[in-house]
Amino acid sequence: MEEQLITAEAMILLSATVAIVWAYINFCFVKRVTISGAFSDTGESSALLGDGDGRSASEIVARLTEIYEAIYEGAESFLTAEYRVCTQFVVAFTILVFILIGIGTEWDTTRAGLSALSFALGAFTSMASGYLGMKVAVFSNVRTTVSATPGPEGWTRCFNVAFRAGAVMGFALCGLGILVLYGTAVSYKVFVYPNPDDWVKLTECMTGYGLGGSCIAMFGRVGGGIYTKAADVGADLVGKVVHGIPEDDPRNPATIADNVGDNVGDVAGMGADLFGSFAESTCAALVIGSSFKDFGWSALFYPVVVSSVGVFVCLLVSFIATHFRPVKKERDVESALKIQLVASTALMLPVVYAASKYYLPEQFEIGAAVGNRMVTLYPWSAFVCVSAGVVGGLIIGLITEYYTSHSYAPVRELANSCKTGAATNMIYGIALGYKSAIIPVIVLAFIVYGSFKLCDLYGVALAAIGMLSNLATGLTIDVYGPVCDNAGGIAEMAELDPMVREKTDALDAAGNTTAAIGKGFAIGSAALVSLALFGAFVTRIRYASNDELFANGVNMLEPVTFAFLLIGGMVPFAFAAMTMKSVGLAAMEMVYEVQRQFDQKPHLLDANPAEPPDYDACIAISTNASLREMVAPGALVIFTPLVTGIIFGVNAVSGLLVGSLVASVQLAISMSNSGGAWDNAKKYVEKASPDSALKGKGSDIHKAAVVGDTVGDPFKDTSGPALNIVMKLMAVLSLVFSDTFFYFNKGKGFLNL
Amino acid sequence: MEEQLITAEAMILLSATVAIVWAYINFCFVKRVTISGAFSDTGESSALLGDGDGRSASEIVARLTEIYEAIYEGAESFLTAEYRVCTQFVVAFTILVFILIGIGTEWDTTRAGLSALSFALGAFTSMASGYLGMKVAVFSNVRTTVSATPGPEGWTRCFNVAFRAGAVMGFALCGLGILVLYGTAVSYKVFVYPNPDDWVKLTECMTGYGLGGSCIAMFGRVGGGIYTKAADVGADLVGKVVHGIPEDDPRNPATIADNVGDNVGDVAGMGADLFGSFAESTCAALVIGSSFKDFGWSALFYPVVVSSVGVFVCLLVSFIATHFRPVKKERDVESALKIQLVASTALMLPVVYAASKYYLPEQFEIGAAVGNRMVTLYPWSAFVCVSAGVVGGLIIGLITEYYTSHSYAPVRELANSCKTGAATNMIYGIALGYKSAIIPVIVLAFIVYGSFKLCDLYGVALAAIGMLSNLATGLTIDVYGPVCDNAGGIAEMAELDPMVREKTDALDAAGNTTAAIGKGFAIGSAALVSLALFGAFVTRIRYASNDELFANGVNMLEPVTFAFLLIGGMVPFAFAAMTMKSVGLAAMEMVYEVQRQFDQKPHLLDANPAEPPDYDACIAISTNASLREMVAPGALVIFTPLVTGIIFGVNAVSGLLVGSLVASVQLAISMSNSGGAWDNAKKYVEKASPDSALKGKGSDIHKAAVVGDTVGDPFKDTSGPALNIVMKLMAVLSLVFSDTFFYFNKGKGFLNL
Repeated sequence: MEEQLITAEAMILLSATVAIVWAYINFCFVKRVTISGAFSDTGESSALLGDGDGRSASEIVARLTEIYEAIYEGAESFLTAEYRVCTQFVVAFTILVFILIGIGTEWDTTRAGLSALSFALGAFTSMASGYLGMKVAVFSNVRTTVSATPGPEGWTRCFNVAFRAGAVMGFALCGLGILVLYGTAVSYKVFVYPNPDDWVKLTECMTGYGLGGSCIAMFGRVGGGIYTKAADVGADLVGKVVHGIPEDDPRNPATIADNVGDNVGDVAGMGADLFGSFAESTCAALVIGSSFKDFGWSALFYPVVVSSVGVFVCLLVSFIATHFRPVKKERDVESALKIQLVASTALMLPVVYAASKYYLPEQFEIGAAVGNRMVTLYPWSAFVCVSAGVVGGLIIGLITEYYTSHSYAPVRELANSCKTGAATNMIYGIALGYKSAIIPVIVLAFIVYGSFKLCDLYGVALAAIGMLSNLATGLTIDVYGPVCDNAGGIAEMAELDPMVREKTDALDAAGNTTAAIGKGFAIGSAALVSLALFGAFVTRIRYASNDELFANGVNMLEPVTFAFLLIGGMVPFAFAAMTMKSVGLAAMEMVYEVQRQFDQKPHLLDANPAEPPDYDACIAISTNASLREMVAPGALVIFTPLVTGIIFGVNAVSGLLVGSLVASVQLAISMSNSGGAWDNAKKYVEKASPDSALKGKGSDIHKAAVVGDTVGDPFKDTSGPALNIVMKLMAVLSLVFSDTFFYFNKGKGFLNL
Repeated sequence: MEEQLITAEAMILLSATVAIVWAYINFCFVKRVTISGAFSDTGESSALLGDGDGRSASEIVARLTEIYEAIYEGAESFLTAEYRVCTQFVVAFTILVFILIGIGTEWDTTRAGLSALSFALGAFTSMASGYLGMKVAVFSNVRTTVSATPGPEGWTRCFNVAFRAGAVMGFALCGLGILVLYGTAVSYKVFVYPNPDDWVKLTECMTGYGLGGSCIAMFGRVGGGIYTKAADVGADLVGKVVHGIPEDDPRNPATIADNVGDNVGDVAGMGADLFGSFAESTCAALVIGSSFKDFGWSALFYPVVVSSVGVFVCLLVSFIATHFRPVKKERDVESALKIQLVASTALMLPVVYAASKYYLPEQFEIGAAVGNRMVTLYPWSAFVCVSAGVVGGLIIGLITEYYTSHSYAPVRELANSCKTGAATNMIYGIALGYKSAIIPVIVLAFIVYGSFKLCDLYGVALAAIGMLSNLATGLTIDVYGPVCDNAGGIAEMAELDPMVREKTDALDAAGNTTAAIGKGFAIGSAALVSLALFGAFVTRIRYASNDELFANGVNMLEPVTFAFLLIGGMVPFAFAAMTMKSVGLAAMEMVYEVQRQFDQKPHLLDANPAEPPDYDACIAISTNASLREMVAPGALVIFTPLVTGIIFGVNAVSGLLVGSLVASVQLAISMSNSGGAWDNAKKYVEKASPDSALKGKGSDIHKAAVVGDTVGDPFKDTSGPALNIVMKLMAVLSLVFSDTFFYFNKGKGFLNL
């Protein structure tokens, strides 16, 4: 190998530092916008207020501050409450990890301790990411609102504020993730396992990091998802459907809770989710890589190098949106975001090729997961696997967009189906979701086959890493969306000029489309990560049993394996049922509360009510419901593999993981896309003029479309995306506790099946 | 073995004869009721007509005959059209079977010819069963209507007519199935393969019978399902929702099509489906059994003996409903039907035990599907496997009932969710369906594990046979339902006294609940059949490859296998999407047609319109839509395994089958139960008084419930039950063409992966 100008270590640390600095720079940009500043210049102030709006600058600043603070406080208090529950869980589970790994390793306390430590670190990094994201989002929403001044500069300014807010989260999370992960690994190497022969143990202890990240992601996604959708569905059901008041109208008591929800669900929850994917895919690749002979520390951390160079790529690409092709009109918004995704994908390819050539040995051999074959790997074959992930992610994303954007036939057809009522809208929407999974699944199958064949399980892990390599860009866009959504909400509540709302709505709409693309990446990578983790689990058990188990692969026709294949396929459905019903239940509570307020104080519905509604009651309902309801689905996902492994053994776990993977992928894609399509079909109907075939807002067709949108809310923002975590979490958990499972009757479980 | 008083052969032939004779006897009972006879006695005639109904006996007889004939002609012409398409398919596919098996066996024209012949026989038996069922149902519907005289005798009479109509179909189908299957086997033995060493080949040729039955079942279920639900959904959407006219109102142009649909979808389609299950489970057991050494013809046909003794059990049990505990009031109806299921299950156990002891060797050894182990079987172990199926089916059925009957909490909760609108009803209903799969899947997993462990794959096949052993009873109840539904429709259209409609509605409601139980049996047995067929496929490939393939089982971690696991999981979703959308599309066409008639002739909506609406236009829409739309999903299911096997090889097929099995089970149970629950939640709301919390008919709550019911129609009667066939058909197809798949690069497919 040629001499390296920049070692892998230096590259990783450099990228983490650059990412964090870049996040801070973006934060400074956002911070420069102030509420009072926007109104000190009289010209702008009057432009943001409607004609004949008699409020003074100080009045409007006070109103904006009031709304912003209400959202801020709601989000802060929810996350505090949620993280209090999570911390209790983390403390208890850290102990459990220690004990179970202790049992599995016959009290190798070093491994048990380090695994527990990794778990706690992963969990707290995840919480930190979520908290940070929420803070940034809440900080930026009102700043986006006041930047939406008329004309092209307004477009540029408000887009940039939201986009940079996203970048703060995107880059900070990537930097933090890489830094903590690599820092942990280096510490373990320096202080505990300096000998390369022990790196298998080292990487095993590291898997706790992925588990910790994933557990918090689970609670974040589910808790946040229930919070945001309970508020959203509840607000829509009473507000829009019954009383015909617009979304985010300040008279609706659930409106603040709805805006809080965007921050805790779509920002904090999703940040934790993607952080978990990153951590797990890296851990899977490390575990598999550590079994290779003479691989060396640098080569072992090649997967992290891929993520590191991804940071630079995303950073460069972000200039396209802010400098080379700034947004100047409505049309620019969607293309600006899409260019981010396409350009970062395109740029990744040569960069990854160079990194592979530079950091990987010219040729190396790895043992196949199944049988006693050796597989020869080259830098180009690793590059092909990573690229398959990078490109495959984009394809899946674009297919997702095709099925969920109202620029294309499927959503338009869905909108048309509303003409015959809500029932046909439902039938078409569910069918659309199911259908939308066909091509993504074929693409995934293709990636699995190709990367597996080329580089065995290591290839699958690399494909997952590849799909997540432009994570910073993906996260930027994902955070951008809720910020714009909130910005619009604030504009509506502060009764600013409709022009402001139009701008933020356009920003939000483009965000929805690109968020759909992002979801495609998230689900695809989750499937690959799960398979890689499952493969690592099989490899671990194989070594632990000295080739007595799984040496010839995992046999589907083992009675217990097949039985658990069926049960595994059931878990995601059960999980979806629980989370959907939680949203439904909480939404109904919300509806009753809003209705109660309107019944008791009918004047709340006046055009300019004398007193505000009781926002806090609604916030309390969402908070309590989500904290209460996130426990059961979380427990299902965490304890099913644990109990299965301990009681029924490793064959049962294999069936469970594969069954759940197969069903989760379908269900996650279908639910996310059905939900997205319903949302955009409703928007498409709303955009139609009253004279057109679709009749537009307020018509029966619109009402049918709103039913779809409401059903779609938990589909696309609670159950669907949480299913990503279901498959990953079950797999990483099995990997972490593989030695423990093996301990019971040599992997045959407590029942010795 | 002790000397047999009745040989297996005699038992099988006897049962088939008894079944057919018993079907004929029941037919004679039904035939004794005549329309004119009911009105010749003046007392009854006036009781069936409302007070002040001035129509004479001859007028009402003419009206009833007119309606009955319209339904009859619609059903007849649809089935003729459908079977014309099916016949074309069968002819073409018979040739394809001959060619492909010819290729696979290197032109062993005997096997190719016999397989093709079996295929054609299975297909035509299935068509005959469907046609017979439709004939009986159409013949009996009006007879049920006119038997619904006031008082307890009325209850007894109309229940008995509908029940006996069901029995005609139930017993005729069982008798026909057993007779043709066994007759074919004996002919092959006598004329072609007298040597026991050749019975492996004989049973392989027999599998074509299962394939033929299943192909027709596929078209029958999908075609019939689209027909009936297009009419039903369309009629509901315009009639109930828009114009507020009641179900089956003669003013609704779609009403005849709706009643035709019950006969072609719920009777003919479902008859073909269950016939297919019977044929396939028997074929799977025969193929596996034929590989046992020194097993003997009688023991080989033990699975058919189980079905045969089932006929006698069902026959005896039917006397409970008609003689020992005749129906005398509304409450008796549901318990009468439920007793049928429970009693036939209970009585099966001792009978099967005796048959096992009597017809199976005291001990015999079979080769395990995986590895080189031998498994020792005893009559009691075979009995345990069959019983697991019998009892498991009942448990799954009762769970299904719990989730779909409005006597229990889930449906009541669902009805309550309608208070906050259609959206929460949808969310709760989908969640209910997903949740309802949990216990059935665990029960199935338990059966799979237990029977597999005890008797290897043979045990799984026996469990499937067990679950279908009281098929005659199940079919009786399944046909009973649509007959009562039609009877009510006829009463409504002929404007008979509301008392008649109340009676038929009560019969129908009880039928819905027990039909739900029947669906549980159907789905559970389909899952077991598929696994047994998959096992038989694996065994076949293993022998064909001389233990080079699958000797150590089927490895999930083979790249191509895993890739196709994902694709297999996608197929049922794609299939459900296609069929649901077909229903949606056809229903929308129906809505437009009905609306067009009302728009052009507003007087059609008058209380007593001068002219009838154009029923035929609606029948044509349903017919054309279903013939057009059944092709694509059928092709998907038939050609996916075929193309996969030929191009990608047998590892790919394994992944495909298992993936599709895992996903189909979940989706089939969920969709059927969601649909059933929505239907009954709507009925529960309708039964509520206007002063109660649920407000009753016509309220907004009711409208929300109707949306659920409408969405549930394709769920429970088109896509859900057709998914049974998806898993079975793909598996039996792979088994039939296993040699062909192996022919291409020794099972590695055309691409030589």
